[in-house]
Amino acid sequence: MNAFTPSDPNYAQRIRDSFARQKVMALIGARLGEIAPGRVTIELPFRDDLVQQHGYVHAGIVGTIADSAGGYAAYTLMPAGSSVLSVEYRVHLLAPADGEHLVASARVVRAGRTLTVCELEVEALKGSARTRCAWGSQTLICLRDRSDMPAG
Amino acid sequence: MNAFTPSDPNYAQRIRDSFARQKVMALIGARLGEIAPGRVTIELPFRDDLVQQHGYVHAGIVGTIADSAGGYAAYTLMPAGSSVLSVEYRVHLLAPADGEHLVASARVVRAGRTLTVCELEVEALKGSARTRCAWGSQTLICLRDRSDMPAG
Amino acid sequence: MNAFTPSDPNYAQRIRDSFARQKVMALIGARLGEIAPGRVTIELPFRDDLVQQHGYVHAGIVGTIADSAGGYAAYTLMPAGSSVLSVEYRVHLLAPADGEHLVASARVVRAGRTLTVCELEVEALKGSARTRCAWGSQTLICLRDRSDMPAG
Amino acid sequence: MNAFTPSDPNYAQRIRDSFARQKVMALIGARLGEIAPGRVTIELPFRDDLVQQHGYVHAGIVGTIADSAGGYAAYTLMPAGSSVLSVEYRVHLLAPADGEHLVASARVVRAGRTLTVCELEVEALKGSARTRCAWGSQTLICLRDRSDMPAG
Repeated sequence: MNAFTPSDPNYAQRIRDSFARQKVMALIGARLGEIAPGRVTIELPFRDDLVQQHGYVHAGIVGTIADSAGGYAAYTLMPAGSSVLSVEYRVHLLAPADGEHLVASARVVRAGRTLTVCELEVEALKGSARTRCAWGSQTLICLRDRSDMPAG
Repeated sequence: MNAFTPSDPNYAQRIRDSFARQKVMALIGARLGEIAPGRVTIELPFRDDLVQQHGYVHAGIVGTIADSAGGYAAYTLMPAGSSVLSVEYRVHLLAPADGEHLVASARVVRAGRTLTVCELEVEALKGSARTRCAWGSQTLICLRDRSDMPAG
Repeated sequence: MNAFTPSDPNYAQRIRDSFARQKVMALIGARLGEIAPGRVTIELPFRDDLVQQHGYVHAGIVGTIADSAGGYAAYTLMPAGSSVLSVEYRVHLLAPADGEHLVASARVVRAGRTLTVCELEVEALKGSARTRCAWGSQTLICLRDRSDMPAG
Repeated sequence: MNAFTPSDPNYAQRIRDSFARQKVMALIGARLGEIAPGRVTIELPFRDDLVQQHGYVHAGIVGTIADSAGGYAAYTLMPAGSSVLSVEYRVHLLAPADGEHLVASARVVRAGRTLTVCELEVEALKGSARTRCAWGSQTLICLRDRSDMPAG
């Protein structure tokens, strides 16, 4: 439907490098999944230390993997040497994040020169069941003169 | 300005108990701050394992403490025996989450029988500077027949 | 994909009656389009008195037809005798609303007993071109004990 | 609290001119109120042809005046020769828009070189009562090389 052509042929490696610098992903146990033009997934195995008061993965952690998936989906289409930042994101929490693992999927809805809009979705997989637990959207900005690495 | 009167005089203890069950708060090092009718704060000291690619606290972790602060701000006004869930939340990321610690503040904007709306704010404190790094809003639902504890 | 079964077989008439009471729809010239379980469209021919400063249909009018389409998409699945209200909605403005007419399409993403979440989309049709100009989401509440008609 | 200094001393006239080109404002009967750095209000007297099915002003019309108020609040701080567009907006509908007139107030929360974030609020005035009926937020973009007037 949306056929995006990345300007940077090295986009997948650029995203793997950036993801590796997001140390919070290691803390929560999240892993990069699919990387395709305008589309990225992140997987999160359930862990007992990620939960809210009812024993499900906390909505903020659901939002964390959704936000990163969206950032990297947008980043697939941004030029080499640029950096990506979330301007805002929002999630509807449709069902408890109850499963053996979660998969956050993001896809670019509109890619502009400065701003990108992504659709965010998180599914909970439990046995053979797949339940959409979160759905939302995000606005991102491309910083053309900003390295993706920490300053200093 | 908004003078709320909790129906449950034991609201603060109820929130401390619920927060203690949110194991993700211990994982990231977040602590409950102020608890007042319609208002809750959560503090998060900076840690190097909470960061995104530029070395600032990840927007999703910023959202995590904002979401919990909002949930508990709403919960101060809900009756004993009820449970609270986020229906949706959204954050604008106004500045990098760059500081020695973050403070998420939430206040109830409207408390209805079923739905509550909260304003969310996260500030980054660095030396004597205090910068608002995130601002947003949230819709929450009161579940009257649902324990705040995990099932089973 | 989502196969919804309305509990009220008379849902389409109920929506036509309600739409006719939304007098603002007549003011702006909007018409009901498709009505199907969990899906409604509203059409708006371009008029020169609907525009913002650049000569395109105002984002708020785009939001108005999106909000009503979402309300009625949700209402298809609500029981007879109930009423529907928007709790919140948001739209991303992806392109100028530039066309001979606009079509707002809404579909139910999640239908709960109390709350429904809809996806909203507005397309601008110009000659043979069809451009998505707005995309968003909405939370709605079902009021079971509230007539859809004005009080008094 | 937020002391903004407009770069264009002629900002108020620029906004009056732009508002006059928003023909939808005349259609619905909306009028510019206060114009100050980072803050704009728009007033809307109740009219029977602006209503939704229950007889209150339609949420989309509430959003329309909120969106324009936010656009112009942002525009007070943008340079002469620029143009402003909404990137996205969202409103929580807190109470029915029931009153003799509505007042939409917007204030700038963050003014960046490219993006501005505004807080939006709509109050319904009925006799001596003043009820907040909508509250939300908005992201706007400054187009530096784009006239505020229609092309052609």
